[in-house]
Amino acid sequence: MAELDKVTHELVAANRILAHEGVLDAYGHISIRHPQDPSLFLLSRSRSPELVEPDDIMTFRLDGSPADGRTDGPYIERFIHCGAYEANPEVMSVVHSHALAVLPFSISSVPLRTVIHTASHMGCDIPVWDSQDSFGDTGLLVQNMEQGRDLAKALGKNKVALMRGHGFTAVGRSMGEVLKISIYLPQNAQVYMDAIRLGGTIKCLSPGEIEIRDSFGPGGRELNRALDYWARRAGCSHYLNYEKK
Amino acid sequence: MAELDKVTHELVAANRILAHEGVLDAYGHISIRHPQDPSLFLLSRSRSPELVEPDDIMTFRLDGSPADGRTDGPYIERFIHCGAYEANPEVMSVVHSHALAVLPFSISSVPLRTVIHTASHMGCDIPVWDSQDSFGDTGLLVQNMEQGRDLAKALGKNKVALMRGHGFTAVGRSMGEVLKISIYLPQNAQVYMDAIRLGGTIKCLSPGEIEIRDSFGPGGRELNRALDYWARRAGCSHYLNYEKK
Amino acid sequence: MAELDKVTHELVAANRILAHEGVLDAYGHISIRHPQDPSLFLLSRSRSPELVEPDDIMTFRLDGSPADGRTDGPYIERFIHCGAYEANPEVMSVVHSHALAVLPFSISSVPLRTVIHTASHMGCDIPVWDSQDSFGDTGLLVQNMEQGRDLAKALGKNKVALMRGHGFTAVGRSMGEVLKISIYLPQNAQVYMDAIRLGGTIKCLSPGEIEIRDSFGPGGRELNRALDYWARRAGCSHYLNYEKK
Amino acid sequence: MAELDKVTHELVAANRILAHEGVLDAYGHISIRHPQDPSLFLLSRSRSPELVEPDDIMTFRLDGSPADGRTDGPYIERFIHCGAYEANPEVMSVVHSHALAVLPFSISSVPLRTVIHTASHMGCDIPVWDSQDSFGDTGLLVQNMEQGRDLAKALGKNKVALMRGHGFTAVGRSMGEVLKISIYLPQNAQVYMDAIRLGGTIKCLSPGEIEIRDSFGPGGRELNRALDYWARRAGCSHYLNYEKK
Repeated sequence: MAELDKVTHELVAANRILAHEGVLDAYGHISIRHPQDPSLFLLSRSRSPELVEPDDIMTFRLDGSPADGRTDGPYIERFIHCGAYEANPEVMSVVHSHALAVLPFSISSVPLRTVIHTASHMGCDIPVWDSQDSFGDTGLLVQNMEQGRDLAKALGKNKVALMRGHGFTAVGRSMGEVLKISIYLPQNAQVYMDAIRLGGTIKCLSPGEIEIRDSFGPGGRELNRALDYWARRAGCSHYLNYEKK
Repeated sequence: MAELDKVTHELVAANRILAHEGVLDAYGHISIRHPQDPSLFLLSRSRSPELVEPDDIMTFRLDGSPADGRTDGPYIERFIHCGAYEANPEVMSVVHSHALAVLPFSISSVPLRTVIHTASHMGCDIPVWDSQDSFGDTGLLVQNMEQGRDLAKALGKNKVALMRGHGFTAVGRSMGEVLKISIYLPQNAQVYMDAIRLGGTIKCLSPGEIEIRDSFGPGGRELNRALDYWARRAGCSHYLNYEKK
Repeated sequence: MAELDKVTHELVAANRILAHEGVLDAYGHISIRHPQDPSLFLLSRSRSPELVEPDDIMTFRLDGSPADGRTDGPYIERFIHCGAYEANPEVMSVVHSHALAVLPFSISSVPLRTVIHTASHMGCDIPVWDSQDSFGDTGLLVQNMEQGRDLAKALGKNKVALMRGHGFTAVGRSMGEVLKISIYLPQNAQVYMDAIRLGGTIKCLSPGEIEIRDSFGPGGRELNRALDYWARRAGCSHYLNYEKK
Repeated sequence: MAELDKVTHELVAANRILAHEGVLDAYGHISIRHPQDPSLFLLSRSRSPELVEPDDIMTFRLDGSPADGRTDGPYIERFIHCGAYEANPEVMSVVHSHALAVLPFSISSVPLRTVIHTASHMGCDIPVWDSQDSFGDTGLLVQNMEQGRDLAKALGKNKVALMRGHGFTAVGRSMGEVLKISIYLPQNAQVYMDAIRLGGTIKCLSPGEIEIRDSFGPGGRELNRALDYWARRAGCSHYLNYEKK
C-alpha cells in the first residue's frame, strides 16, 4: 500500500498546487489513475481543491461509482474523469478547470492556438466541446457516463478540450504533465489573446516544434524543478516528498 | 435570538468574503433580510466590508431608518437595500459593489451577456440603471427612498442591475446565492470583454440553460463547497460555523 | 510640535498605503504641506514609499532646498512638489506616481475621461504634460524649478496632470483627497480603456455630476472609512491614529 | 574570496527578486560574470529562482562547462549566458525570462517600442530572435554554443532580444541594471499593448531621451533605492547586505 499512499499524497499536493496557481478555485478537480488497478482512479470527495486533505481522497470505478465503500458526497462531474480514463489507457491524470483566460476561446469562433513553448504539451489541436451539440439545453454539467463519453470523444487523442461556457479538461501521461499543461494553458491563452489584439500577423508553434517538445516525455528534471517550485509556493512540499519522510 | 445571532455572524463572513474576493473594496456593502421579520434587514454600520465585526451589524426598517435604536453612522446608500427588499419579498440578500470588470458595461452601449455557467444565476437580462434618467445630475449615490425605488424598478425581477458609472446591485434568494452571483459576475464580464476583443462570433448561455441552472435552487452542496472555500480563504470560517461552536 | 508629529506620521501612513495599493512601487512619492508654515512641505528622503519611516521625513522649502539642515539624499524630482505648492495655495498634498494603468493615456492621442464616480475628484479635464514641449530631449525627470513650474502651469487648476511616458501628478486639498484620487485614477483609466475596447459609445460623468461630487469636500465620513481600510490593509493604522495613542 | 562571496549572495538576491516581481517563475535564470575572471560566470544549478540558495551557485566557463568540479545538474539553457558574455565584454549580468506581457511581441509582426521612462535602459531597438531562422524546428531551447552564439548575434549591441514563442534575454553592465530592465520591460510591454488598443497615435521615447537616460549609468542612488525595495519585498535583503554583516 506504500505506492497508493504516495500517490494519494501527490494528488493532495496537485490539488493545492492548481488552487494556488489560480487554475482551480472553489470548483474544478484533478484525478489520478490508480497505480495498481487501471480500472480505478483517485479523486477527492466534493471539496474545493485548496482544502483537500489525504482523507478526502476516494477511489472510483470508471463508471463513477465509489470503489472503496465510502458514502461521502462525490463531485457531480466525476464523469469527466471516467470518460477520459475509459477512452484512452495512456491517460494517467485528468484536470477539469474553469480558468478565466481560457474561457473566451470556449465561447468564441476564434480558435485557440499554441504559441508559447511552455504550453507545447497541450498539442496542436484544441477542440471545443459544446454540450448543446449532443444534449441540447442542460445545466452544462457532465453528470453521467453518456456525457463523459461524449466529451472524451471530442477530446480524442488530444491533450486538451475546451468546454463551451464552462472551462477545459486536460489529460496527461503523468500527474506532472497534466499539471504543467493546466498551468501554462491559461498563460498561452492570455498571450494569444494579447497578440491578436496587437493587430499584426502571429506565428504559432509549428507542428514540428510541438512534436519535438512532446518527445521530451512526461517527466524529467525540468518538470521536477517546476513541481518542486509549485509545491513550495503552495506550502505542500511535504505531500510530494512523502516517500522520503 | 440564536437564529439572529447566526445570521449576524454569517453576514460578517459575507462581508469579509466579498472583500477578500475583490468584489468590494473600501466601499460597497451586503445585507440580509431579518430572519424573523421581513420588514427589517441587517446591514453593517458605515465600515469597509473587510473590517466589519459582529458589533457593527445594525437592523434597519425598509425605509432606511434604524430599528434598533443605534445611532452609529449608517451607509448613505442603504436605500439600495431598502428598495430591493420592499419591491420583492423573494429577495433575501442584497449586494452593492463597484467591481472593476463590471464597470465598462455600465458606461458602454454594449450590453453585458451571460456567457459562463458559474455566473448563470445572474439570469438572462442585466439592465443598466442610469441615475440621470430620473434625477438628472446628482452625486450618483442612492441616498433616499425615491432613488432606491427607482433602482428597484429598473432591477425588476432580474438578479442584477448595473448602475452607470457606479457599479452593480445584485439580489438573491439566499446569502449564498447573492455571494455566488457577486463573485462570478465580474468574472463573466471579464470573459465576455475578452471574447469580444477576439473579434469572432460569441455563443452566450441559452435561456434554456439559464433556466435549468436556476432550477438547481439558491443553495445545496455545490454552493456550500464554495462557501467553505471562500470563508477559509478570507479567514472567517468561524463566522459561518457559528452554530456548531 | 504635536501637530507636526501627527502630520509626519500621517505622511508615513500615506506612503505605505500608496505602495500597498499599487499606486507607487520602487519610485514615486507623496508630500504634504507643512501644517504651520505654508512655505514648507514634508517629503521623505530618497526611499521607496513602502519602506518610509518617520525618521525619513524631511522638510523642504518651496524651492526644493532642505529647511531642516538634514543632508540625506532627497528625491531628484522633489521639484514636482515645489511647483505645485508654489502655484496654488489650496494644494495641501501632492502625489507623483508611475501607475501602469494610467501610462497608456500619457502616450496616446486618446484623452483620458472621468467615467467612474469614485474617481470624480480628479475633475473633468486631465491635461498631459510633455517635457519635450518646453525642454526638448531630457531624461524625462522634473529636476529643477523651471521644470516643476512648467508642470504646475500645465496642471493649472486641475487635480491631475499626466506626464508623457512617465506617470501622473495629483494634488488635493487634503492628504485624504489626494490619496483617493491617486487610488481611483488608475481604476478609472482601466475601466475607460476596457470600455473603449468594447467598441460602443461611452457615457462619461457629466460636468454637473463632477461638480456635485466635488462639493462633498475633501474629507468626511466616507473618506475616513476608506482611510481606515487602506491603513489596515497596509498594516500602518498606528500611524494614522498617532494622536490617539 | 570575500568579493566572490559577496557576488554569490547578490546573485541569490537577484534570483529571489526576479521571482517575487513575477519576471521568472518555475523557469528562467539570472547570471553574473565572475568578479575576478571574465572568462567565467556564476549561475545557479537547475533550480527555480525563488528557491535558489548560496550553495546552488555554480561557476561556468564561457563554453557552458562547469569550472568548479561540481556535477549538479545545470540549466539546459546556460548557453544563452555563454553566448552573451562571449560576444560582449561589457556584459556583466544576463537574465533569461518567459515574462507573459512580453511574449505577445515575440510572436507578433508588431514590434515592441520603448514608451515608458523606467524601461529606457532597454534601448531603442528590441530585436526578435526566431530559432527557426537558423535551426528550423527545434524544442525552442538554447542548448548548445551554436544556438547561444546565434542568439548573441541577434542581440548585437542591444540590451534586450525577444525570443519567438519563448521569452526574452536581457543583458546589463551591472546586475542592478539588468534587474531594472527585466522588471520594467514587461511593464513597458503592457503599457504599449494598452496604448495600441486605445486606437490613437502613440508617442514613444525619442532616441535622444533614451541616450540621455542611458548616460545616467548602470548604478547610482536611484537604482540602489529600487534594489533596497525589491529585496525587502522578496525577503532577501540580508543577501544584498552581505558585506555589512
